[in-house]
Amino acid sequence: PDAAATQGAQDRNGQLTKPPGALGRLEDLAIWYAGWRGTDRPQISAPQVVIFAGNHGVCAQGVSAFPAEVTAQMVANFEHGGAAINQLSKAFGAKMQVHALSLDTPTADFTTAPAMTEAEVVTALQIGWMAVDPASDLLVTGEMGIGNTTSAAAVAAAVLGGQAADWTGRGTGVDDAGLARKTDVVAKALALHNMDDPLEALRCVGGRELAAMAGAIAAARHHRIPVILDGFICCAAAAVLAKTSDGALDHTVAGHQSAEAAHARLLHALGKEPLLNLGLRLGEGSGAALAIGVLKGAIACHSGMVTFAEAGVSAG
Amino acid sequence: PDAAATQGAQDRNGQLTKPPGALGRLEDLAIWYAGWRGTDRPQISAPQVVIFAGNHGVCAQGVSAFPAEVTAQMVANFEHGGAAINQLSKAFGAKMQVHALSLDTPTADFTTAPAMTEAEVVTALQIGWMAVDPASDLLVTGEMGIGNTTSAAAVAAAVLGGQAADWTGRGTGVDDAGLARKTDVVAKALALHNMDDPLEALRCVGGRELAAMAGAIAAARHHRIPVILDGFICCAAAAVLAKTSDGALDHTVAGHQSAEAAHARLLHALGKEPLLNLGLRLGEGSGAALAIGVLKGAIACHSGMVTFAEAGVSAG
Repeated sequence: PDAAATQGAQDRNGQLTKPPGALGRLEDLAIWYAGWRGTDRPQISAPQVVIFAGNHGVCAQGVSAFPAEVTAQMVANFEHGGAAINQLSKAFGAKMQVHALSLDTPTADFTTAPAMTEAEVVTALQIGWMAVDPASDLLVTGEMGIGNTTSAAAVAAAVLGGQAADWTGRGTGVDDAGLARKTDVVAKALALHNMDDPLEALRCVGGRELAAMAGAIAAARHHRIPVILDGFICCAAAAVLAKTSDGALDHTVAGHQSAEAAHARLLHALGKEPLLNLGLRLGEGSGAALAIGVLKGAIACHSGMVTFAEAGVSAG
Repeated sequence: PDAAATQGAQDRNGQLTKPPGALGRLEDLAIWYAGWRGTDRPQISAPQVVIFAGNHGVCAQGVSAFPAEVTAQMVANFEHGGAAINQLSKAFGAKMQVHALSLDTPTADFTTAPAMTEAEVVTALQIGWMAVDPASDLLVTGEMGIGNTTSAAAVAAAVLGGQAADWTGRGTGVDDAGLARKTDVVAKALALHNMDDPLEALRCVGGRELAAMAGAIAAARHHRIPVILDGFICCAAAAVLAKTSDGALDHTVAGHQSAEAAHARLLHALGKEPLLNLGLRLGEGSGAALAIGVLKGAIACHSGMVTFAEAGVSAG
């Protein structure tokens, strides 16, 4: 972030017509955003929501409550404007794009082989990187992929440590038997692969949409575009970056804490405090898109309010 | 609320292209809102933010970090568009009005006499009632009044029970000595007045802006306009209604939990779970206005998403 813009935003914040600190986290958000945008009085006028979809060979292990064809069906739904993320993007003035990543060629079942080849994971990272519009001033990365909470749990366990059960949850809503199967699948993957390197973990147990999200989040940093992280799967992809390079997520804020059981643990591991905690567990970038409203409110106050001197208000 | 609209909204919610419950509290919010608006597929197109300002004789006891003239100065700031609530109202598409209530005639110092006469409190209630536009489809009530966290603490203690210290906090930012003074002032008021009746508590230790908020919240119910409650002072005013009539706040949702220490206790007493918890303690309706975004997101999803059948998506 730009030190002068950060300092300028801090100075401005201290002069606005409110008691010091009275806007709570909105003040921290505005200063953080100003620093990354390189101006002490930023605007949010071009938020971008980008959704990546992928299919997972591990679905063969019965880890999801939904059949794998739902991934492609939901991509069509995104394209026709009928999903939750379409409504939220529209409500908060974000343009939205969907990238379907080789849906007819699922990743390999990672209980028996690496999910992706090196070429496949690099392609997905590149697609993610290229999907970010450099003219955007805020990014949300979302995903769709039946089976991808299983993949995200395996990535989180590989990258952050802990047991399979620590990271495995009910996803779209599997029952107790399904949860036991998922946990077993994640444990098998952890035993099978050598994943000391975070990017190797992404290749072995991740998925194309996770890799693309990681690529997009890294590209956003390159372009100085702040990112609102979404739920468990997005944060698992982000954890790969965090473990690859210190401070790799400094340009990101956690949009929400999802109802997926291990998301709270994942946010804690990333050192991120969520803006919202409303029990969402949909994916698609939905929780992060909802948090665009919070960030827009923060920036509206910071950049739109007058100072005590301008208003002729006694500063107490 | 309209039982048929509630049922219709519940049915619709169950058919939308998402796993059951995956939008968490957004689903409950949409069904609640639909019931009060009397349609299973509502829109939010006319939110109203109304701010009431009053002055408090109890300021003579040194209970605020700011001088009393700041109330009128901030009213001018609201009128000129420079305050936080102006930016938030604009950001979330709400029209905003300010009502300055006899600022040159503060309430009486309630450590020695009732804050208001019966005529004064009735006038304030009426102004609040009349301030609500029946054509609005969502209401936020905000306030400005140097000294009013002291008044709100006294109202909360009188109406909900407990000790002065349970309800007294730092407001705009008093130091330890100021907090001790405030607590003492609230204790004196509780000892002085007979406040078995909630409306009598509002008269004896409330303020014009608290009474006006209570009037507005009651009027909103009459017009079937859902209300987003703001922070400590708004909720203290709402508590008067809650204790006057069971279910009087069923058309309201808590927009946020503020950093004012006793707000969490007050929300708990009202049985309200806040939508946001971002450390705001500004008043003005700011936390509730920020929550308009959350409610808009909920309604956008509920009313804009397609069903599994419409999208041709397998329902799992």
